[in-house]
Amino acid sequence: MVNKSGPTRRSLLTMIGKVGGTLAMYQAMTALGHAAESKFSGPPRLSGTRQGTKVVVLGAGLAGMLAAYELRKAGYLVRVLEYQNRPGGRNFTIRGGDTYTEVGGATQTCQFQPGNYMNPGPWRIPHHHQTLLYYCKQFGVELEPFIQMNHNGFIHQTKAFGGKPQRYRELSVDFRGHVSELLAKSLHAGGLDQTVSKEDKERLIAALREWGLLNGDLKYETGLTTSYDRGYERTPGGGVGGEPVASKINDLSELLDSKIWSQMNFYTNHVMQTTMFQPKGGMDMIGKAFGRQLGNIVTYNAKVSSIAQDDNGVSIAYEDIKTGRKSEVKADFCVCTIPLAVLKQIDPQVSKGMKAAIGAIPYSGQLKIGLEMRRRFWEEDYGIYGGHSFTDQHITAISYPNYDFFKNKPAVLAGAVSRGMGAYALAGMTPERRIEAALAQGSVFHPAEYRKEFMNGVSWAWSRTPWSLGCCALWTDASRAQHYDNLVAMDGRIVLAGEHASYYGCWQEGALLSALNAIERLHKRALAA
Amino acid sequence: MVNKSGPTRRSLLTMIGKVGGTLAMYQAMTALGHAAESKFSGPPRLSGTRQGTKVVVLGAGLAGMLAAYELRKAGYLVRVLEYQNRPGGRNFTIRGGDTYTEVGGATQTCQFQPGNYMNPGPWRIPHHHQTLLYYCKQFGVELEPFIQMNHNGFIHQTKAFGGKPQRYRELSVDFRGHVSELLAKSLHAGGLDQTVSKEDKERLIAALREWGLLNGDLKYETGLTTSYDRGYERTPGGGVGGEPVASKINDLSELLDSKIWSQMNFYTNHVMQTTMFQPKGGMDMIGKAFGRQLGNIVTYNAKVSSIAQDDNGVSIAYEDIKTGRKSEVKADFCVCTIPLAVLKQIDPQVSKGMKAAIGAIPYSGQLKIGLEMRRRFWEEDYGIYGGHSFTDQHITAISYPNYDFFKNKPAVLAGAVSRGMGAYALAGMTPERRIEAALAQGSVFHPAEYRKEFMNGVSWAWSRTPWSLGCCALWTDASRAQHYDNLVAMDGRIVLAGEHASYYGCWQEGALLSALNAIERLHKRALAA
Repeated sequence: MVNKSGPTRRSLLTMIGKVGGTLAMYQAMTALGHAAESKFSGPPRLSGTRQGTKVVVLGAGLAGMLAAYELRKAGYLVRVLEYQNRPGGRNFTIRGGDTYTEVGGATQTCQFQPGNYMNPGPWRIPHHHQTLLYYCKQFGVELEPFIQMNHNGFIHQTKAFGGKPQRYRELSVDFRGHVSELLAKSLHAGGLDQTVSKEDKERLIAALREWGLLNGDLKYETGLTTSYDRGYERTPGGGVGGEPVASKINDLSELLDSKIWSQMNFYTNHVMQTTMFQPKGGMDMIGKAFGRQLGNIVTYNAKVSSIAQDDNGVSIAYEDIKTGRKSEVKADFCVCTIPLAVLKQIDPQVSKGMKAAIGAIPYSGQLKIGLEMRRRFWEEDYGIYGGHSFTDQHITAISYPNYDFFKNKPAVLAGAVSRGMGAYALAGMTPERRIEAALAQGSVFHPAEYRKEFMNGVSWAWSRTPWSLGCCALWTDASRAQHYDNLVAMDGRIVLAGEHASYYGCWQEGALLSALNAIERLHKRALAA
Repeated sequence: MVNKSGPTRRSLLTMIGKVGGTLAMYQAMTALGHAAESKFSGPPRLSGTRQGTKVVVLGAGLAGMLAAYELRKAGYLVRVLEYQNRPGGRNFTIRGGDTYTEVGGATQTCQFQPGNYMNPGPWRIPHHHQTLLYYCKQFGVELEPFIQMNHNGFIHQTKAFGGKPQRYRELSVDFRGHVSELLAKSLHAGGLDQTVSKEDKERLIAALREWGLLNGDLKYETGLTTSYDRGYERTPGGGVGGEPVASKINDLSELLDSKIWSQMNFYTNHVMQTTMFQPKGGMDMIGKAFGRQLGNIVTYNAKVSSIAQDDNGVSIAYEDIKTGRKSEVKADFCVCTIPLAVLKQIDPQVSKGMKAAIGAIPYSGQLKIGLEMRRRFWEEDYGIYGGHSFTDQHITAISYPNYDFFKNKPAVLAGAVSRGMGAYALAGMTPERRIEAALAQGSVFHPAEYRKEFMNGVSWAWSRTPWSLGCCALWTDASRAQHYDNLVAMDGRIVLAGEHASYYGCWQEGALLSALNAIERLHKRALAA
């Protein structure tokens, strides 16, 4: 997530003055309409690498693997140490037969049918995450649309509408309508004549009439005009009796109870905007594809126990967690992508500033639950194809699967996409009780079907994940100001990379951009050495 | 399209009183959250058909084919006469090698690469068009998402922003922001104290602050808060220099020039809401699938020249347009799905009221242009994956293809999706000049690439289509009141069906619902005879 506050216009201009050449080029690109889409401008061009220079990369998540891939391409001798027995890190997928044990000791075995899956970590790719899209294409990962926005999903607030979920389309159209009516009324009465010119006032009233679906008297009211957007009580039909019946609009007070604007904003966040994608077959298609590129330069099951450096190089001690055998890797440089919550326990030999940064950033604890259902009742009975239904209960939202639409076979929906206190409340339960909570809470959306069609479920609590001890780094404006520069700086022969070392926290794009930035600086440092 | 005006609340209640039983059942279904999605409640159950009863269906578009399919299933002896040499009617697809001649004599041959196509007629399926979705599933038509809404598409108005296209996300977020600021300001100043309660006023101000991304002073301003939704001047990155740079917001006056609210409303029309679908491989997969179900009961190349009826049956005269041979079909009943613009030239033997209705409804003249481009520059250079860019020029919009995303091969975009006067202006040109106009006008969106990557193109002008003489029936509230009941009534032994005989004009769902409604009435009439 990106912090919302930022530099003032003046400080921006000062900064533009400082960085000079690069930015001038950047602005030239922007003028062509290209660069603003992404900070990515193609793979790095690292030339002149000194033969025999060794780099050890810690972690085979996306950041580590991209660093290793590009460094090897540039001529470095690269080795990767990875704690788990697979590539991908937080990029992974759970399928039927998978067994895992979380911190606290609870073990789950997934019972999904073949072809069904849950992505516990990343699950959607914004269209402007060009680094990730670029390497997906390079490495042959096939992508399909991820349906993010769905006007037909539900919104549930315990204290709104007597706890009965409402369709997103109804609430959002009504909210827009009431806002338009009130503003048109105010403009009409001259209440904003000091602010809006006479010409704009007339134009804005006309715009609000159209935008808000207001009637000739500038009122938002029940009728076919408003049903045209919010949906009908009875939809249009054919032949005799085909005329539609209008649906009844909601009052402003009820809409304020529903907090609908939060969801309306959710869909317009730049990272949540259409078009989004997902890999066909599960998010781990990406991790696996990166892993295939690296082949045997990755050592799996390697638990790093110390990270040391001096003027001549770095030294990494690790243990094979299958055999217990201890080993050491020496290299000229190290790219460390270990999540901060784990890294601080290793206590790496870095500067005081970086150490403070590593220790200062807490991690979030998202939680997801996958529920396998006998049939796609959300499609068949509710007309919901992909997208989400939101609630103020602990599960936060349920999300409908974006693959195998219309198929007559069991399907997995995300029965919880939980963050904040809700996620911690669920993580505090046994896996069995989490499923029960998800069924109880999700039933508000689909009361007749939810328990009836339920087959089995699994949960993933990031706060209980042994190899990351959390989901993502939680930056604040204050911690950015104090620690970010220290965290990302080349620290002797060590440089950190990962989503935590970016302004795109909690996104794979941030991990990749961070890796590219880190190796470009490592390369400069290596050439200068 | 559905007329926006409709019955008052009182007339609704009167109507509810009249229809009694059916509606009571309907409302019971609505309470369960099911029925409101669609008028479709499963295939018709037509029982007790008298053996040997014959029905002739005119037209093998979706309405005619569904009528024939369900009537045959119910035990009727069915024959279908179709003017063209293929099933589907307006449901069809143009591919490389296809040749066609329009009214006026111009002939085009499509030169698209294998796998590329254009759907001249229907091209997207709303998630609530349950009749169409039901039969697609029954007949094995595979569907994939149609990306309708795209925040990253462009908006172009000749007289806004110096004619430079703007991203939808920027304009829509800015419009929402300014509206929120003005309303919050007005509320704050007490301008609406007579209308909004004190409690709601405070809650609404808080909502507008969040919804409109206003600052602490309730202002919508340039900064990272607003860039978080509208997009950045420089997107967030990783490592050193990863901080984002805010994009500059637009003034209200500029937004009013852009008419952005029209596009914002376009996406919230009930028929345009997410999730939408398209058949994999082209829209004609549906027409072909329906056609396969019917097999040899369809006679193709059959031009109907007269439609007569008496107390004993109907008599249809037709000519084989390949051989010139004239024939006659006699049947007990007729379902006629011939588009009104053609039907009125046949002058069928129906009541004065139906005849007046047939003659009274004009047809629209949409026009589409398919442009094959060497590469998907809209994806590669602009980050636009599916969706549309709108303009006030004749082409109305260009639309980006929703299949083969990311592929390195030529792709077809819709270079015009034109309606109204723009469509007639383009239809008045030669096919060659239409392509030139599409290239000239579409270049505003992609100036560097549009002509450079262009390979070839085809156009389809519905106003010049010999077998339909237009695209869809254009109903008004007045013509509905005067003619609709007469048009859809069982007229002796003849009943009409098609999108023109529905309240869902210009949608395949309307054609199907109309067909189901028509054959249910035909069946009752046949049993009563």
